[in-house]
Amino acid sequence: MKIIIAQQNYHIGNFESNTRKIIDAIHSAKSKNADLIVFSEMCICGYPARDFLDFNDFINKCYESINTIKEYADGIAIIVGAPDRNPAKEGKDLFNAAFFLDEKEIKHIAHKTCLPNYDVFDEYRYFEPAYNWNVVEFKGSKIALTVCEDIWNLGDNPLYRICPMDILMQQHPDLMINISASPFDYTHIEDRKSIIKANVLKYKLPLIYCNAVGSQTEIVFDGASLVFDKDANLCCQLSQFKEETKEINIDTNGGIDENIIEPAISLPDQQLVPLHFVADLNISQVYEAIILGIKDYFSKMKFSKAIIGSSGGIDSAVTLVLACEALGAENVRAILMPSEFSTSHSINDAERLSKKLNNPYDIISIKNIYNQFIKELEPIFENRPFSLAEENLQSRTRGNLLMAIANKFGYILLNTSNKSELSTGYGTLYGDMAGGLGVIGDCYKTQVYELAKFINSAKEIIPENIISKAPSAELRPEQKDSDSLPEYDILDRILYQYIERVKGPNEIKQQGFDASLVDKVLRLVNINEYKRNQFCPIIRVSPKAFGVGRRVPIVGSYLE
Amino acid sequence: MKIIIAQQNYHIGNFESNTRKIIDAIHSAKSKNADLIVFSEMCICGYPARDFLDFNDFINKCYESINTIKEYADGIAIIVGAPDRNPAKEGKDLFNAAFFLDEKEIKHIAHKTCLPNYDVFDEYRYFEPAYNWNVVEFKGSKIALTVCEDIWNLGDNPLYRICPMDILMQQHPDLMINISASPFDYTHIEDRKSIIKANVLKYKLPLIYCNAVGSQTEIVFDGASLVFDKDANLCCQLSQFKEETKEINIDTNGGIDENIIEPAISLPDQQLVPLHFVADLNISQVYEAIILGIKDYFSKMKFSKAIIGSSGGIDSAVTLVLACEALGAENVRAILMPSEFSTSHSINDAERLSKKLNNPYDIISIKNIYNQFIKELEPIFENRPFSLAEENLQSRTRGNLLMAIANKFGYILLNTSNKSELSTGYGTLYGDMAGGLGVIGDCYKTQVYELAKFINSAKEIIPENIISKAPSAELRPEQKDSDSLPEYDILDRILYQYIERVKGPNEIKQQGFDASLVDKVLRLVNINEYKRNQFCPIIRVSPKAFGVGRRVPIVGSYLE
Repeated sequence: MKIIIAQQNYHIGNFESNTRKIIDAIHSAKSKNADLIVFSEMCICGYPARDFLDFNDFINKCYESINTIKEYADGIAIIVGAPDRNPAKEGKDLFNAAFFLDEKEIKHIAHKTCLPNYDVFDEYRYFEPAYNWNVVEFKGSKIALTVCEDIWNLGDNPLYRICPMDILMQQHPDLMINISASPFDYTHIEDRKSIIKANVLKYKLPLIYCNAVGSQTEIVFDGASLVFDKDANLCCQLSQFKEETKEINIDTNGGIDENIIEPAISLPDQQLVPLHFVADLNISQVYEAIILGIKDYFSKMKFSKAIIGSSGGIDSAVTLVLACEALGAENVRAILMPSEFSTSHSINDAERLSKKLNNPYDIISIKNIYNQFIKELEPIFENRPFSLAEENLQSRTRGNLLMAIANKFGYILLNTSNKSELSTGYGTLYGDMAGGLGVIGDCYKTQVYELAKFINSAKEIIPENIISKAPSAELRPEQKDSDSLPEYDILDRILYQYIERVKGPNEIKQQGFDASLVDKVLRLVNINEYKRNQFCPIIRVSPKAFGVGRRVPIVGSYLE
Repeated sequence: MKIIIAQQNYHIGNFESNTRKIIDAIHSAKSKNADLIVFSEMCICGYPARDFLDFNDFINKCYESINTIKEYADGIAIIVGAPDRNPAKEGKDLFNAAFFLDEKEIKHIAHKTCLPNYDVFDEYRYFEPAYNWNVVEFKGSKIALTVCEDIWNLGDNPLYRICPMDILMQQHPDLMINISASPFDYTHIEDRKSIIKANVLKYKLPLIYCNAVGSQTEIVFDGASLVFDKDANLCCQLSQFKEETKEINIDTNGGIDENIIEPAISLPDQQLVPLHFVADLNISQVYEAIILGIKDYFSKMKFSKAIIGSSGGIDSAVTLVLACEALGAENVRAILMPSEFSTSHSINDAERLSKKLNNPYDIISIKNIYNQFIKELEPIFENRPFSLAEENLQSRTRGNLLMAIANKFGYILLNTSNKSELSTGYGTLYGDMAGGLGVIGDCYKTQVYELAKFINSAKEIIPENIISKAPSAELRPEQKDSDSLPEYDILDRILYQYIERVKGPNEIKQQGFDASLVDKVLRLVNINEYKRNQFCPIIRVSPKAFGVGRRVPIVGSYLE
């Protein structure tokens, strides 16, 4: 059987574009005499469509697309993912479904059983879990067709009571096909490969795994679709972070006519990779994920040009490099906004960076505007000493200038805050926290340094001085980050335990960190939730990013 | 049996304060020789604790509180709500539970069966539904103890497969007790009363319903705890929006020694009240809900003073009145910030309002700061015509001034945006969209007028001119809202259908609205999701507020 895996990038709610893309791939598959073409989970409407799924009109549009596409199912069968209405009087209105189209008909619909409802996932908000299971018979083969998380339960996943593959095995399938929308994080690709392999080892069937690719605001789907033969040899892995179409042939014994990439023996069996900090970070994947995140945010929002406040510090430098790579240097305008507290090296470093990148830049001093603010505020401030108010005022004056230029010319402001700052509230709302997309907001400061080193690995792009100097917000004379925060290599390790590993204060202290430091750091994280709540979407690269995947009360005093 | 209903206001994660409050009520109940005291759902840790529930340390603290409280269960039984660990290997780690404490022991734990996972609720994210059900035997009575949503399924609610009361009835209970954390919206109190009464009519048992009170960031719990006798007469309704403790006596026949407030016959049976726009709006309840929302945000965040940009328009006028009522006029500072486009009546109206309210106010012109911005931007803007950039710059200059004064003196900026503006994106990010709490962000413009009329119903507080003049942002000469937006009475009706009623474009057009206007309005709502995503929490008074209860993609093109 000749099967095409279509790993594509969809636009949520853009039925016209998604349908056209799917049909184009079907045309191409037909020209190769393929028997079956497989698309990813929710390809019809894009994933996650969230509360758009609550609109009847939206679900109607999904069916209209399927009806359009099924007319092309002649001489080829097609698997697409879409919501399917639940005809029963009880339960949620929808299923998360895989539609099997053949002979211009919907021949089979497989509903998803294991519905993720953690981190960024809200599938119980919309979907009813499957309650019946059948293989699809096609050209003498029986296909066990499942959706994403369905194969993350091998009967031992505490999150789910039902193991759909165990049930489907009673009907003696010959082949497993899973359609997914499984997002990237720097731990997830190895976990994913292991769990898919574990299915093959358990059920002794070949498995075709078609994943979505593309970024949806904050969530990056990385593709990397996989094919295992029945002996659990990895035969095929599609590109990560790119669209790709791949043809494979499966023989009647479950063999696959591809060279084995990784023999069964070389992969750890059924064992999920533990998470570690930094050491396990595949920095080139993080880099690629962020590039895709920027690209797709702009293309799907129909934007093309970005603006960035360039301070001469490492965060804005890394953000600027990533933006230039994603959008083209000519489309990224840097604005250098020195104040009376800026050191001369900052402006020099920022200029040198933009000269290297060859992106347009301008210099606007904030001094006169800031002084005018202070003058108008004088009757109210009277003679109170310089404080956080004046520091924030500088930051917000910069935010104002950036937004004014953005509004005038149609730029999107990219935010340069890192995860260490966002965690501890070391940033100014409406100032350096302004922007439409958080580029490095899921990278701790130590990880931003890793990114900088990676960027400079072939040749120096970021001036060495930007990497080597001590971090400073430069909002008062001689200011250093370390005046307010612990050293980043300690801070980031505590934050990682609290945020990514969900360890509480007692558990973190037991790991040997200083107790009062742990209390201080965790308190900072908690009391600054109100700031993060107003922050823009962050490109997610870790297993726990701020934003939709982490939901904590603003008015809550735990750990304060 | 003498039962005390303790309708209290909890602080999420503040175990010390919650536990003390609970123990104080137990002491008082003992002095009245009560047999049983009933607290609301999740009283131990506050509701909704959200992802704090993922922390082992947090759950440990819950058990510590319960262990402390159970020592007081001598001579009195106590019902408290808290998370309970799931000992099973499968399913979520926790149950949402009611603990029955007696003789210094945990005598019984009832788990919640019907877990809401829509709008602001995420209970499937944390909790496993109950899988066994037993009545509590106490002093010769059998109590059917349930948690909140459990009594919202009478066997016919499509959201839930299991009706826990149907199962408990097999054990012949004498009394129903339900502990809740059921939030306010302007439709919900009637729905709630109807569904509780429907339980009494179906099961022919008296029902004690103890609801939480108090605001948790955006969600306002309104209390209004209820007692029905077995004949479905409403015998008791506790205050709305206030803490209250109420003693009731139930005799062995299910009779209750209270005067009947509403006899069974007067309430609609099992019929949920349909939602209508404005007509059904109980404006005094909305007013009270917002007051409580402001009060609790400040007290739980340990803030006391607010700052508001006062423009002379109706939105800031209503917000200012609400804030003065909630916090005391002396704690609310109004800042009037005229520009060259401000009309003289605006500043006069704003001054007159603050003189009536007797709250402190200051006037700062933004003209010089704005001109300085424009001067510095001149080399970049060159001679491009006045545009949205300059309008937004004025708004952001005001935001900057407000935040600077807030930072200097420790004020919290209250936001004055209404729901019509937030829906259509008719506001400036970091400008008039700045602030820590959205006071009237869940009220459409037409509802803001209703609030103004309500405020002025006894005597004129808001100057009549503020109510009668045409709305304007005053960011360019002669600007009117109606230049950019449809008239509010039409706009708000379309928005209500789309947002509260979740009707799609075709459905709304079928109601008779102009098709191109519907498309225009819905497109505005969708393309402005990126702005609302960065907006502060909004005090929720409607069945569908922007914020945690409405989750739509930013990068999504549906209905554009």
